[in-house]
Parts: sequence; C-alpha cells; structure tokens
Amino acid sequence: MVIYDCWSSMTLHRHTLAALCPPLVVTTGRRERRKADIRSRLFRAALELFALRGFTATTVEDVTRAADVAKGTFFNYFPTKEHLLTAFGEMRLDILRTARSEVQLGKKPAREVLCRLLSALAAEPWETRAMARCLLANGLGGEPVASLAAKTMAEARHILSSIVTISQRRGEIRSDWSADDIAGLFQQLFFGTMYRWTLDPHLKLTRCLGTAFALFWAGVEARPGQFKRPQKRSS
Amino acid sequence: MVIYDCWSSMTLHRHTLAALCPPLVVTTGRRERRKADIRSRLFRAALELFALRGFTATTVEDVTRAADVAKGTFFNYFPTKEHLLTAFGEMRLDILRTARSEVQLGKKPAREVLCRLLSALAAEPWETRAMARCLLANGLGGEPVASLAAKTMAEARHILSSIVTISQRRGEIRSDWSADDIAGLFQQLFFGTMYRWTLDPHLKLTRCLGTAFALFWAGVEARPGQFKRPQKRSS
Repeated sequence: MVIYDCWSSMTLHRHTLAALCPPLVVTTGRRERRKADIRSRLFRAALELFALRGFTATTVEDVTRAADVAKGTFFNYFPTKEHLLTAFGEMRLDILRTARSEVQLGKKPAREVLCRLLSALAAEPWETRAMARCLLANGLGGEPVASLAAKTMAEARHILSSIVTISQRRGEIRSDWSADDIAGLFQQLFFGTMYRWTLDPHLKLTRCLGTAFALFWAGVEARPGQFKRPQKRSS
Repeated sequence: MVIYDCWSSMTLHRHTLAALCPPLVVTTGRRERRKADIRSRLFRAALELFALRGFTATTVEDVTRAADVAKGTFFNYFPTKEHLLTAFGEMRLDILRTARSEVQLGKKPAREVLCRLLSALAAEPWETRAMARCLLANGLGGEPVASLAAKTMAEARHILSSIVTISQRRGEIRSDWSADDIAGLFQQLFFGTMYRWTLDPHLKLTRCLGTAFALFWAGVEARPGQFKRPQKRSS
C-alpha cells in the first residue's frame, strides 16, 4: 500500500517514479552490450537527423557520421533507412509487450505494471529534452516517418487495450469506460507529459511522469459501487 | 447532474463536448468580424510558415502572400513578426482569463468552466490536423518561437493554477494535490490530446477531448473523506 499512498498524496519530490518503479534490469554480456550501444547510437543519430532535415534528405552516411560508426556498420543492423524506423517502432512495442506479459502472468497489480510502463516508455532515448523534442517532431513531420509513428501508436494502443481489458476483468480498473478509451488516455498523457517537459526547462521528468500517473490511476482505478450507471427511479 | 453523468459514463458518442459545453458566443459588428478574420488569417499563415521554414527565414511578405492580404495590412495588425507571436500568445491567455473570471464570479461549477475551457483551447486555429501539427511543431522548433511558447505556457499554468485554487477552496477539486500540479496536468492532457489526434486520422477531436476531460475530472474531483492522509495508528 506504500506505493498507492505515495501516488495518491503526490509526494513525488520524496518518492520519485524511479524509486517506486525500478526499471526492468536486462543483464547481457559485453558483446551484446556493445551491439546495443551501437544500435542505440544509430537510432539517436537517425531520429535527430530525420527531425532536423527530413527522412528523404538524410542519407545513411549522414547517420553513420553523426553516430560515429563506419558506414558499413549500419547494414549490420538495418538493411535500409526504412528498416531503422520499423525497428525503432518494434523496440517501443516490445516495452509494451513485456508489460502485457506481466499482467497476463497476474503476479503484479495492474497499477504497478502500468506505472513502470510509463517510466520505461520515457526512458532512453527520450531522456534528454533535445532527443524528446526530435522524437515528438518526427511524428508531426513528413512521410514516411509520420505514418510509421501512427502505425506504431495504433499497435501500441492495441496492446495497452488488452492490458486494460485483463485488469478490468480482475476488478483493478473501472469497467464503465472502454478499454480502448483508457488505452488512448494513457497515450495522451504520455505524449502530453513529454511535450510539456520539453518546453519547460525547470520541470523534472520523474515528477512530471509521477503526477501524470497519479492522475491516470485516480481516474481509472476501480472503486466498487462508485461508477454504476444511474438507476431508473420507480415513480 | 446530467453533464456529470455523461462524463462519468463517457457516452460521448451521443453527448459531444460541443453539446455539453456550448462555446462562448461573441457578438460583434461586420467591421469587427472582418478585422478578426484578417487577424486570424495572418496568424494561421504565419504559424504555418514558422513551422515549415522557421521564424527567421519567414518574411512578413511571405505571411501576407499566404494569408492573401496586402503587405501593408500586416502592419495595421502587428508592428513586427515578433509582435504577431506575442499577440497570438495573449489571445490564448485571454481564453484562460475568461475562464478564471467565470470561476471568480462563482456562478458556474468548476467542472463546467474547465470542460468548456478545454473545448475553447482546442478551437480555432487548432481545429484542423494540419494547423494543430504546425502549432505543436512550433513549440518544438527553434527560437524565438519555442521560448515564447514556453513563456505563454508558464503564464497559462499560473492562470489555471488560480482557477484550481479557488475551486479547491470551494470544495470542488481535491486539496491534497497542489494547484500547480493539477494545472500542469490540465496542460499535459491538452497537448497530449492534440498530439494523438494529429497522428490518428480516424479519431474524432470532440470524443478525444471528452475522454481527456472525463479522466481529468475523475482524477481531480473532490470526494469528501476519500483523499485524507493516512491516520497514525494508536498502538
């Protein structure tokens, strides 16, 4: 009950999101870590350049130069520029799929899984304002980036929706709102939080995410008897 | 109670935001309407061009050409390009100030004022996806647009915060969350809603705003006795 008390009283200056919801620890060998590092550098460089110059005007050479890797290295990771985008989308969806598996296993409450999920989605490569700005700008910019972003968002909402449906069946999330609406709201809060954070240099991301999750949970949490549809009066 | 029941059960396909919260009707003469129309065209053209080419690369002539007005006309409305931005920010803040006055007068419940406010903020010039995309992109782009957007957002949060404070004193909004946090959440939901809407061509804006407000209100509404801090046990 400690976590819920923290959220509900929003004392997030003391109990940060990171402390409440530790990230999923992935232990890998040195070679895997090096590969993950290069992949991450290629993603960052590409997404930054797509946001600045547009997808079409950016070459693979631009990306490898900005990422400080040999040009040929790119093709060890992605067959084309387009595949980089698809892979990035898949990486984001995997974060959501992990959360869905956790909810399906049923060992952790939905509140905890969703809270950690919000934190995981805002982690690398979103964790600097400059990068978050690029990622948000990509969704607003030209094709094919905007279309791919929209496709990933639709798939993400589908996964989120199944998390909500399971949690509704278990009585953890209110059932009078549709799972799809609640999934959409989770996305709206995520993007709105990142957008506001990029604009305000004084804002702490953990605090901003914490208040966002507190609002989300206060709004969607099932409270027995509270959200029944109005009864017809017997006249 | 009809409005609240609609929100809480989220039957927004039948009861749209517009129907629940009619916009503030401003009656003016023909001359004023014409001036407002030219002003609006200049705003739209300028904000679109700033988003596409950047503020510095856009000339006053580019703006007047895109807005289809004579070049000299621009200076009847704004002394410089910078003043156009400031005026746009002030126009947005006036929407919030109107809502604050309504709450100060105390004749309407906070829920109704805030619901209408969300709808008013999403109205012209945000009502097309293309324009909403430009407005969001401006906040993510270069200077001086991003800084001015951040300044307007801070002032907007200040006004929202005073609306929340008054509503907390009246027992309409929960008092265990700070007014500033709640004001920030309102902004996060607004920007997140607009962002998601620009990305999804199948989404209806009124529905999207409706679910966003339903979540906001379900989360911040005062419920007597529910959000008291935990009592210390007497051992």
